[in-house]
Amino acid sequence: MSVVKLEECREQIRTELDNVVDFWLKYSHDTVHGGFFTCIGRDGKVYDELKYVWLQGRQVWMYCRLYRTMDRFRKPEILEAAKAGGAFLRKFARVSSGGSGPWKCAFCLTRDGKAVKIQRTIFSECFYIMAMDELSRVTGDKDMQLEAEQMMQQLIYWVREDSSDLGRPQLSGDVPTNSMAVPMMLLCLVQQLSEGRGQEVVQKYRELGSWCVQQTLQHIQRDGTAILENVSLEGAELPGCQGRLQNPGHALEAGWFLLQFSAERGDEELQRTAIEKFVELPYQYGWDKEHGGLFYFLDVDGHCPTQLEWSMKLWWPHCEALIAFLMAYSQTKRPELLERFSQVYEYIFSHFPDAKSGEWFGYLTQEGKVALDFKGGPFKGFFHVPRCLYMCEPF
Amino acid sequence: MSVVKLEECREQIRTELDNVVDFWLKYSHDTVHGGFFTCIGRDGKVYDELKYVWLQGRQVWMYCRLYRTMDRFRKPEILEAAKAGGAFLRKFARVSSGGSGPWKCAFCLTRDGKAVKIQRTIFSECFYIMAMDELSRVTGDKDMQLEAEQMMQQLIYWVREDSSDLGRPQLSGDVPTNSMAVPMMLLCLVQQLSEGRGQEVVQKYRELGSWCVQQTLQHIQRDGTAILENVSLEGAELPGCQGRLQNPGHALEAGWFLLQFSAERGDEELQRTAIEKFVELPYQYGWDKEHGGLFYFLDVDGHCPTQLEWSMKLWWPHCEALIAFLMAYSQTKRPELLERFSQVYEYIFSHFPDAKSGEWFGYLTQEGKVALDFKGGPFKGFFHVPRCLYMCEPF
Repeated sequence: MSVVKLEECREQIRTELDNVVDFWLKYSHDTVHGGFFTCIGRDGKVYDELKYVWLQGRQVWMYCRLYRTMDRFRKPEILEAAKAGGAFLRKFARVSSGGSGPWKCAFCLTRDGKAVKIQRTIFSECFYIMAMDELSRVTGDKDMQLEAEQMMQQLIYWVREDSSDLGRPQLSGDVPTNSMAVPMMLLCLVQQLSEGRGQEVVQKYRELGSWCVQQTLQHIQRDGTAILENVSLEGAELPGCQGRLQNPGHALEAGWFLLQFSAERGDEELQRTAIEKFVELPYQYGWDKEHGGLFYFLDVDGHCPTQLEWSMKLWWPHCEALIAFLMAYSQTKRPELLERFSQVYEYIFSHFPDAKSGEWFGYLTQEGKVALDFKGGPFKGFFHVPRCLYMCEPF
Repeated sequence: MSVVKLEECREQIRTELDNVVDFWLKYSHDTVHGGFFTCIGRDGKVYDELKYVWLQGRQVWMYCRLYRTMDRFRKPEILEAAKAGGAFLRKFARVSSGGSGPWKCAFCLTRDGKAVKIQRTIFSECFYIMAMDELSRVTGDKDMQLEAEQMMQQLIYWVREDSSDLGRPQLSGDVPTNSMAVPMMLLCLVQQLSEGRGQEVVQKYRELGSWCVQQTLQHIQRDGTAILENVSLEGAELPGCQGRLQNPGHALEAGWFLLQFSAERGDEELQRTAIEKFVELPYQYGWDKEHGGLFYFLDVDGHCPTQLEWSMKLWWPHCEALIAFLMAYSQTKRPELLERFSQVYEYIFSHFPDAKSGEWFGYLTQEGKVALDFKGGPFKGFFHVPRCLYMCEPF
């Protein structure tokens, strides 16, 4: 791929980002209760009014990030929607139930904010923090920033000290696990909370950032030939399906998190490891040589994964791959990384965008046919697509 | 389909049942710890040693049922394996954790019986009860029968009085739901515990049986044009995806449970309702006119379901359909029911059995291609396939 071609891609990415933002501005706002509808059908119709907290937090974050960093999105309607989403989260997301303390967030709320479901994990809280921190940056609201930092302290306690408040029973066969999502997500939050905040905050999270990196690197297994999704707390391989599980898109996402971190700290060794092990390697084993696209799950020993959707092609791993290869290329100028970017780009733009109604399909069969045609669902909101386009446009 | 053709089917069913039993006898027994491996690859290799309690209970039940009711399976190795499975369950399945009392069972155990995961539902307990009751019938062990009945009392309490011991937090947006699985499963247990047990036991569960039927019939919705998987406790339609969800295989399974019940009680109106609403109707909306086979999930308003696997063809809905149509035909001799049986039969035998290594594939794409090639997994064990063949052979 030539630099001229890359320039054409950038134009398409820019147009696509505008279209995707328009889609969510048009269809997702709940002007009655605040917050966002996220279950949105192919043509923009809301097919379920439930509000998933991950997606509420992510949309607030994404709106604010666009508003703050890209001039053409510095529009009142974006800011107002983000504020209404933030207010909805602050009013309804936190639930006090089951002794989990004042910081536990629901996973899912009714349209008017009643808790429907609580997960015994930390991810609703992660996206709540992202939303509050980014919103505080555009509004200047110090209380919000403080709230984000306080919840972050709770998260760190749950992850590094004692998770019993989350409500998972202690079971003798349930071996404590380093699941890659956790250090990745905390690393993302460290970067979110630290960026441009001044030395005090940066220092506060410095050790945590290094810990997250070390925990993420533990997932390099099998003499460096595989990234495994779950390892023991000591960084050893776990038995069975759980231990052998691979999620190429997740590894690629970790890859660009690590690349950002290595650039901030000027850590060239980490940069090399990130590119070799978390960008190139997952692409090698995760790309479907027959039909193209990245598998969702794989088993490192070639067994069939037990996840029914293992062979499907989801939008978000491709988003992460696009960011990862462009960032890796941008940092190194190695042409083979641009080639990979191009390959992912071609797959994405020939499969995911919906020419008829805008936005992207999220779920394809292994062969690349649309399997689920909605634009938003319980796990697909205004996040991976716009974040990918937003990250790739300026390179 | 002619009666001669049905006779040919019966021969194939008989051969297939022998082969499937042989597969599990050969590959699934854990001779060290007792119980059964259920994660078994295409060629019989164990790819994960975890023991799922649903599947342990189901295998004990199925072995005992075959041993008790079919002469050719009255073999010591089947009885011994069932007893070892029962002993494993009694020793390890029940966990006392989180104030749930002495009857809560784990969902998943390690090979040597340590609890890995507990679900906040009643289904592990249901299959434990099925196992204990059926095992007590072949061993004559009265303690086991008593244990099954005691656990059944606990289940009834959880379902009809107070479920808070199960550990689900009470959330204001989490509307109490009549999920079809619950009354269906209890109805199945009523039939299991009552069969041939004498009037005292039969009377004990008589009211519960009627209640289960009434709760199951509440799922007939939209002026009798649809079976919906989840309704309110008052039998009204629920909002959103949850309320619109259809699971044709599940409705068909409920259909033959109701048909058995109606035959026992001589209830002709229930028989008609069961055939019209739970057998013919789910087939009409659940059968894929383009590629054949039953969809896994549908949305009654034609929205795309949010379950990633909605369009896949799973083995068990087809097993349930085969039983349901043959039972409906056998009770009524209506030729169109035999035609439907024939259609399901053709789909099954041209798609699911693995000619190379035996047993059936469980998970096909919408187009009928094998998507996951294992023979056993976290939800596929020695149950739906042999139960289907066992139920259909004697007709």
